[in-house]
Amino acid sequence: MRVLGIDCGGEYTGYGVVEMQPEEKLCCLACGAIKLSLREPMPLRLSRIYVQLGKIISTYRPDEVAIEDVFYALNVKSALKLGQVRGVAMLAAATSSLAVSEYSPLTIKSSVVGYGRAEKQQVQAMVTRLLRLPSVPEPMDASDALAIAICHLHTTATLNRQRAVAR
Amino acid sequence: MRVLGIDCGGEYTGYGVVEMQPEEKLCCLACGAIKLSLREPMPLRLSRIYVQLGKIISTYRPDEVAIEDVFYALNVKSALKLGQVRGVAMLAAATSSLAVSEYSPLTIKSSVVGYGRAEKQQVQAMVTRLLRLPSVPEPMDASDALAIAICHLHTTATLNRQRAVAR
Repeated sequence: MRVLGIDCGGEYTGYGVVEMQPEEKLCCLACGAIKLSLREPMPLRLSRIYVQLGKIISTYRPDEVAIEDVFYALNVKSALKLGQVRGVAMLAAATSSLAVSEYSPLTIKSSVVGYGRAEKQQVQAMVTRLLRLPSVPEPMDASDALAIAICHLHTTATLNRQRAVAR
Repeated sequence: MRVLGIDCGGEYTGYGVVEMQPEEKLCCLACGAIKLSLREPMPLRLSRIYVQLGKIISTYRPDEVAIEDVFYALNVKSALKLGQVRGVAMLAAATSSLAVSEYSPLTIKSSVVGYGRAEKQQVQAMVTRLLRLPSVPEPMDASDALAIAICHLHTTATLNRQRAVAR
């Protein structure tokens, strides 16, 4: 199973494609961040994110998409802006008929580090280790996106195991 | 000049296409609301809005798009949801290379009714009168979208007059 994790942001939108191979081995296929110019009008910025995510989806052909579910630690104005980016990210997934799963920051940290209140650096270190990467994925948004993808793969693997036991 | 006004909402997204004809006469070409099922997953809902707005744009070929600028009277969760719809509406405009203008509720009411604190019903009544419609446009979201389009046409006409005087 191959998952595209997306970390939505106003300036940087991180992405990471992770595949779960046999024996639940995780493999990073791609990661990076779509950087937007804050000087461009919002519709143009959104259009760039939509086009870039579409390219990533058609290149890496993920089976599903996972994004962070955030409505904490935001004010109304920043929530509205972040929502605009999220809407376009969800649309990019829907356009390619991919299901979207949402995870809270607590769930993502618990799944990757084993501790919901983990620091950003701990998440980065665990992402690097789990994916056996030569160095920490940069920028931070890219490693956050990989963490979201790992979280979805872990959750799916757990659900599959539970279903197998229940049969 | 022809303007598509969009009133973004979680359940209903209103739209209205208004043309300013010679002697600043306003004419309603279309209005209505895209109704979404709250039972459908959000990515699918956003996809429906995007496709519908794309159809409206290709049918009525507006020159510009206007949307309401809202970040008042919302909580963080509802702002995030509204942002998702706004993002997709802006993207639909950007995909057709249409500029997007944003107006606050106060500006829209001032432009249509002449009074920023006007009631919803006063806005509806003035929209009906300005566009010489046989009845009040329903649902409310459709008349709100028409009000947004009228506001943008009024603003543009005023700016054009000012520019003409300044020359």
